[in-house]
Amino acid sequence: MSKTKLDTLLSSLKFNDQGLIPAIAQDNTKGDILMMAWMNKEAIEKTLSSGRVCYWSRSRQALWKKGETSGQHQDLVDLIIDCDRDTILVKVKQNGVACHTGRRSCFYTSVSENGDCTEISNVEIDPKDLYGNKPS
Amino acid sequence: MSKTKLDTLLSSLKFNDQGLIPAIAQDNTKGDILMMAWMNKEAIEKTLSSGRVCYWSRSRQALWKKGETSGQHQDLVDLIIDCDRDTILVKVKQNGVACHTGRRSCFYTSVSENGDCTEISNVEIDPKDLYGNKPS
Repeated sequence: MSKTKLDTLLSSLKFNDQGLIPAIAQDNTKGDILMMAWMNKEAIEKTLSSGRVCYWSRSRQALWKKGETSGQHQDLVDLIIDCDRDTILVKVKQNGVACHTGRRSCFYTSVSENGDCTEISNVEIDPKDLYGNKPS
Repeated sequence: MSKTKLDTLLSSLKFNDQGLIPAIAQDNTKGDILMMAWMNKEAIEKTLSSGRVCYWSRSRQALWKKGETSGQHQDLVDLIIDCDRDTILVKVKQNGVACHTGRRSCFYTSVSENGDCTEISNVEIDPKDLYGNKPS
């Protein structure tokens, strides 16, 4: 990617006051939503240049190369921006599971009409086997 | 929904410093991502009690009953919260189009590896026929 094109792209996006933009990860084949995290300019640049999805970890305040520790990385298939240019959708090939709990998706708690919460998916990999206490 | 259950649910969610939480809307049948917007406690309550998806409009600083003006409403099929309880996924039955541009989805601009932007979906309804300058 040329520096000019990248700069044009990044300058067109609306980041929040922490310099972040929400990024939704969707499995490209199955279509399920895996997670939502945040990217800064560096994470977007790394994602596009490497083909591996990177986020910005708000808790660690560091670039988060998804799966670097756990091996559960996301290969980028498509990066799509929305009409307001304030949200990113990454379509990915998920290697293993996306959630730090060992579930495929972070969205596993369904709220029924009466307010009850129900877990709708199971743990596929013991988190201890993924990364212990290290970042996912 | 009992008030107690609702309170328990709402108090478990992590809102940002504006009292908002991001909400991703996904078509329940086709699986495509339609939009991402924000909810406050009132929007979540209205969504669950009415079965119609409501957001909080940051630009108008008002409850946004999606489709109230345009007719392009979203019937709630499932409301799912993520592992960190800081993002909501609503699976919906989309009536018509979700995007204020008249496209089915707000995510219609694909960014290629070299930084080029390509529109990947077409306008289905002229926005003027939806709501003119009124909110979507």
